[in-house]
Amino acid sequence: MAMIALQSPFEGMSQHMIGYITSLQNTICQGLETFEPSSRFRRDSWQRDGGGGGITAVIENGKIFEKGGVNISAVFGSLKTQEEQQVFAQLIQQQGHDNFDVKEAIFFATGLSLVIHPLNPHVPTVHMNYRYFEIQSKSDRLWWFGGGTDLTPYLLYEEDCINFHAQLKEACDTHDPQYYPSFKQRCDSYFYIKHRQEHRGIGGIFFDHLNKNSAKHYFDLVQSCGNAFLPSYTAIVQKRHNNPYTQNQQDWQYQRRGRYVEFNLVYDKGTLFGLKTGGRIESILMSLPKHCSWDYNPDIPESQKPLINILKTPRSWG
Amino acid sequence: MAMIALQSPFEGMSQHMIGYITSLQNTICQGLETFEPSSRFRRDSWQRDGGGGGITAVIENGKIFEKGGVNISAVFGSLKTQEEQQVFAQLIQQQGHDNFDVKEAIFFATGLSLVIHPLNPHVPTVHMNYRYFEIQSKSDRLWWFGGGTDLTPYLLYEEDCINFHAQLKEACDTHDPQYYPSFKQRCDSYFYIKHRQEHRGIGGIFFDHLNKNSAKHYFDLVQSCGNAFLPSYTAIVQKRHNNPYTQNQQDWQYQRRGRYVEFNLVYDKGTLFGLKTGGRIESILMSLPKHCSWDYNPDIPESQKPLINILKTPRSWG
Repeated sequence: MAMIALQSPFEGMSQHMIGYITSLQNTICQGLETFEPSSRFRRDSWQRDGGGGGITAVIENGKIFEKGGVNISAVFGSLKTQEEQQVFAQLIQQQGHDNFDVKEAIFFATGLSLVIHPLNPHVPTVHMNYRYFEIQSKSDRLWWFGGGTDLTPYLLYEEDCINFHAQLKEACDTHDPQYYPSFKQRCDSYFYIKHRQEHRGIGGIFFDHLNKNSAKHYFDLVQSCGNAFLPSYTAIVQKRHNNPYTQNQQDWQYQRRGRYVEFNLVYDKGTLFGLKTGGRIESILMSLPKHCSWDYNPDIPESQKPLINILKTPRSWG
Repeated sequence: MAMIALQSPFEGMSQHMIGYITSLQNTICQGLETFEPSSRFRRDSWQRDGGGGGITAVIENGKIFEKGGVNISAVFGSLKTQEEQQVFAQLIQQQGHDNFDVKEAIFFATGLSLVIHPLNPHVPTVHMNYRYFEIQSKSDRLWWFGGGTDLTPYLLYEEDCINFHAQLKEACDTHDPQYYPSFKQRCDSYFYIKHRQEHRGIGGIFFDHLNKNSAKHYFDLVQSCGNAFLPSYTAIVQKRHNNPYTQNQQDWQYQRRGRYVEFNLVYDKGTLFGLKTGGRIESILMSLPKHCSWDYNPDIPESQKPLINILKTPRSWG
């Protein structure tokens, strides 16, 4: 099958971002495949009615990666439905622009979105997403960057959390030493499962609506963060993927993956936006784990209490 | 552990409904247990801050019933948070009452809610919920009934669907022959997974805001429907629970249970209302299956296409 290249109706940053995420998707898929003896990423491309499309790369049933997806997409066009117009009007208002006419505008949205669910419960689930928006009316042009990376361990290794955060911090610090602390805090508040009163994982970084500085400044930041993913995550895969595990530990992982599903289906803005506005369902829901389970009111094993304490009260890893 | 009895601050129908669902919970748990050689319903009672509580009966890891819950609850009090007030104001507006002052009112809500996830994929998942609301301000009193029962098969037996619907129709027809056709249609529109463009199961009955006739009339209806549950469902359990099944059929069941989770977490009003307003989480989420899974973009096996066609385009079973 011939793969469709991502496209933008605009010049400039949209093209740069497309180039970067296209290359990053390949780098990440190849990098993860070096650890995987028995499965490969399969690629599907899809097109969006109205403009644009995406390439979904999925790995399944591996010895290391039970399920994972690395999606890239670039979608654009006019905002036809009231729902689309409302969503963008709200995004634009959050940036303090009240008079932007979304009805006549052309929007563009591109990004890379990744979730990896390893088989072995000693290896954490990881999520990453970096995105760029641009919207052009007759008289105005707006743009912004958003994204983040966060880690969801099932069996806690503090040194893994510390190293993972250290690499994200380093990626941010090059651009502004104030970024990491504020992005870490936003990550903790975003990935919160309100009805469980716990966070989805041990955090990472998260930002949105970045546009106060130059687009180049934020593009550099996104590249640093995106490039930090592979070394920071594969260091953990390398160290933990051969750890033996018990049936109890796998049961625990399945229960915790249930919480991952709860967050994504009940709270995650990107997921709900995609589901409710006709995105490509299989690409959106590739974030869900292959296997998960829900017991009624399960006890928390004594050995898991340190992890749960961190999920209840986020810790500084920096 | 001493069980707390359900309570109401009001006289009359609220007491009758509490009596009925308390007895129905026992009848259903005992009735299902007669099929189950290796597990029993465990009961947990819980209390709500502000008034009332419930009794959750859960069965897990049975040879017949992998997971199931039969909850009863009766909660009441004043509507303290803005969110609670808004929810009730909206419910009351839907009934054409614009001047009801929810801020000073005492509400009461009681109901039985049941989900059974059998182990064997030849036996369908079933859901049932019947509820009664009452709200009293200084000058006004409103009440209404709601509820329904619906079936979610994983392997299609048309005769089971026909028999299940026939018993629901019979329960409704005693009270008004127009009920079943309209309740069936409401069930099909309610249990719809919009992003998959398919229905959760093969339907049943669903109604809400019933208050045009006497409370006794609807209480009789709810009792007929509630009483029809055990014979209509256990007839299927009896017939199918010994059918041998393959790994492929179990995988299919797990995938389809994933759709059940998607409906409950993304669309089900009761679930979302409970999650967002601080209900007892474990009682609300007992509706989720023990095991489920998500593959990326799975093929629909040829043998399952008749079921999928019915889920895409609901059929009349009457």
